[in-house]
Amino acid sequence: STVIKCKAAVAWEPNKPVVIEEIEVAPPQDGEVRIKIVATSVCHSDLYHLFENIHKDGFPVVLGHEAAGIVESVGPGVTEFQPGDKVIPLFLSQCKECRFCKHPKTNVCEKSCEIRIDAMSPLDSRFTCKGKKVYQFSGTSTFSEYTVVRQINLTKIDPAAPLDKVCLLSCGICTGYGAAVNTAEVKGSTCAVFGLGAVGLAAVMGCKNAGAKRIIAVDTNPDKFEKAKVFGANEFVNPKDHDKPISQVLSEMTNGGVDYSLECVGNVEVMRSALESTVQGWGVSVIVGWNMHEFSGQPIKLITGRTWKGALFGGFKSKDGVPEMVKAYMNKKLMVDEFITHNLTLDQINDAIEMMKHGKCIRTVLNVSPQ
Amino acid sequence: STVIKCKAAVAWEPNKPVVIEEIEVAPPQDGEVRIKIVATSVCHSDLYHLFENIHKDGFPVVLGHEAAGIVESVGPGVTEFQPGDKVIPLFLSQCKECRFCKHPKTNVCEKSCEIRIDAMSPLDSRFTCKGKKVYQFSGTSTFSEYTVVRQINLTKIDPAAPLDKVCLLSCGICTGYGAAVNTAEVKGSTCAVFGLGAVGLAAVMGCKNAGAKRIIAVDTNPDKFEKAKVFGANEFVNPKDHDKPISQVLSEMTNGGVDYSLECVGNVEVMRSALESTVQGWGVSVIVGWNMHEFSGQPIKLITGRTWKGALFGGFKSKDGVPEMVKAYMNKKLMVDEFITHNLTLDQINDAIEMMKHGKCIRTVLNVSPQ
Ligand SMILES: NC(=O)c1ccc[n+]([C@@H]2O[C@H](COP(=O)([O-])OP(=O)(O)OC[C@H]3O[C@@H](n4cnc5c(N)ncnc54)[C@H](O)[C@@H]3O)[C@@H](O)[C@H]2O)c1
Ligand SMILES: NC(=O)c1ccc[n+]([C@@H]2O[C@H](COP(=O)([O-])OP(=O)(O)OC[C@H]3O[C@@H](n4cnc5c(N)ncnc54)[C@H](O)[C@@H]3O)[C@@H](O)[C@H]2O)c1
Ligand SMILES: [Zn+2]
Ligand SMILES: [Zn+2]
Ligand SMILES: [Zn+2]
Ligand SMILES: [Zn+2]
Repeated sequence: STVIKCKAAVAWEPNKPVVIEEIEVAPPQDGEVRIKIVATSVCHSDLYHLFENIHKDGFPVVLGHEAAGIVESVGPGVTEFQPGDKVIPLFLSQCKECRFCKHPKTNVCEKSCEIRIDAMSPLDSRFTCKGKKVYQFSGTSTFSEYTVVRQINLTKIDPAAPLDKVCLLSCGICTGYGAAVNTAEVKGSTCAVFGLGAVGLAAVMGCKNAGAKRIIAVDTNPDKFEKAKVFGANEFVNPKDHDKPISQVLSEMTNGGVDYSLECVGNVEVMRSALESTVQGWGVSVIVGWNMHEFSGQPIKLITGRTWKGALFGGFKSKDGVPEMVKAYMNKKLMVDEFITHNLTLDQINDAIEMMKHGKCIRTVLNVSPQ
Repeated sequence: STVIKCKAAVAWEPNKPVVIEEIEVAPPQDGEVRIKIVATSVCHSDLYHLFENIHKDGFPVVLGHEAAGIVESVGPGVTEFQPGDKVIPLFLSQCKECRFCKHPKTNVCEKSCEIRIDAMSPLDSRFTCKGKKVYQFSGTSTFSEYTVVRQINLTKIDPAAPLDKVCLLSCGICTGYGAAVNTAEVKGSTCAVFGLGAVGLAAVMGCKNAGAKRIIAVDTNPDKFEKAKVFGANEFVNPKDHDKPISQVLSEMTNGGVDYSLECVGNVEVMRSALESTVQGWGVSVIVGWNMHEFSGQPIKLITGRTWKGALFGGFKSKDGVPEMVKAYMNKKLMVDEFITHNLTLDQINDAIEMMKHGKCIRTVLNVSPQ
């Protein structure tokens, strides 16, 4: 296979709109796969890199990591994929060989890109634009008509699946849903979900499907509550409606604190509040949101029996988990369509970014290549 | 029963030696028990209140919470105890009626003194000295010939038990041992214990008894390593011997980090190091040491699969757990004598405090009343 020239959204520098450019996508090398992106959606982690990251390196870059597509060609040594396969790129790899992949209780992978929100692909980027090397984001870079990923960062899915829907299973939905069903044992319990973007709403759906008794949805944007109800939340709290700290509000609502809390905002103050909102003795708080700043907290909160943990990609082993989630969607066991509030084209990506920034959407699907 | 006049060590103000005074101990009221202290030992939590606490209230006070004694008289409504019973006072109550006591997975009790290191008994103190009310420490106050505790803060033990030994089961040993056997599942794993006072050494013993494969003992005072070996540690690290952060040292020793770490120092920087010393994916860090300052940390450390928790009194339900631990000691399943490096009298208490402050002892037992 040869170099492909195609359209991609290039982020030349932080805090600026991205620019649709023609880029060159090199052929896949050893163990790599080149894919045509059919649909991609915007996740808050893309915005984090563009606007909020404390590290200002990693530019120019093609962002995007939540997508679905079709294999265009495969590099040497790739036997698992062939052209025409319907696939979902995975920002978290699953090599199936490292001691983490072989361990039943974790989904981190030693061969993963360094897991930081600003992490680039460990492979040399396959992208060039105007003679300049362009970084790949999180081992994927899906705001492009074509991209190259390692086979350990890719999974094959049911060919009947609608790619412009299941692209959401590439990050946000699995992340939130899994945090509730894999990382917490919410059956019969009282849960609080902080942040009602796609990640938080998926966490609400996970709590509901796993049998939580009370699901308290927390967001500073009350426009999100209606959607949260659709996914199963039955109580709603806007921290702005209260003078007291939100942990105190939740403690009073629940006679001492919730059993589980899930932080799906990506704010270190909220992480602390989420921990402090759980009940002493057995409360568990799960950090799902991304942030490079440091949190703080009081030892006594842990000593009196709370547990603080976190989840990457909802605890799913990525290559195994995503096809299962696609199957669950096809079998109507999982909502996906309900997260999609807007459909645009790749050319309109800055509109999608602005809408997310201002809390005006849940997920916008960008239709990149007509199928 | 009437007021008892007896000797006690009164801490009149922070950062000063305690003073042996004659105090008046009022009769036990509803649900209370007055006990003669036979032996008591000094725990770091006493020093914390005296020297390190950020709150300077709670003085004058009689410190001490690790002890064993004999019931002198009981207040109205007390049926569980009678004069002559051998007992151990419990800084953590077990009322057996609150929703926490009824929950199988936690040992916190709603009727406990507010659980802060500077917490006073919720009962009005029964102590007076020179006409002044003197605070009781942690619901106990054992640096006295007599004290009054609530029956929910007391447990009856095997009358054959030597009180000048099993007094150590009143706090330090149970705290460290339980953190390893109740809060962590160390079987077959690699553990690091930070801090080798009685609490940390008991944690080492717990790791050993629970079948840990590697037990790495960490202390800035290398004099502690010999004792740690007795309790089962097989590797020893002094952070002062290294230029690198201790988390990096441990990570290199263990190819990525330990499975479990136990913080038995009571220092927020060490708490952070202990978390960062655990392996991504499944590492668990348990905070055992006390400190009122705030810790900080990076979200990514939890997101990549580490768990942060804590343990109060080693997770033992106090009234049930202590007699079991006494039994284990009597059946030679548990070392206790090995923690005792010095025996003094109550009059010599300032020597005991100074020795602990300077790392010159593990536990000093003060023989308060000859049996
Ligand atoms: N751990 C992972 O693997 C992983 C994967 C994907 C996304 N993420 C992270 O999850 C987070 C959420 O992503 P998203 O795409 O759903 O984002 P989003 O922007 O769509 O949603 C965030 C929500 O949080 C709300 N919010 C903001 N401040 C708040 C506060 N103080 N209290 C309560 N709610 C508040 C916003 O109103 C919004 O509804 C981000 O930090 C993202 O980077 C993590
Ligand atoms: N959670 C509970 O229920 C509970 C109960 C009892 C005691 N505690 C706490 O446990 C802690 C230990 O108590 P103890 O009586 O064993 O104290 P101790 O003073 O006998 O032992 C502390 C040890 O930590 C070591 N140390 C100090 N700084 C260190 C560092 N930076 N790195 C490694 N080691 C370091 C000291 O050299 C010493 O050996 C204290 O904070 C105490 O308040 C907690
Ligand atoms: Zn994402
Ligand atoms: Zn792997
Ligand atoms: Zn103690
Ligand atoms: Zn209780």
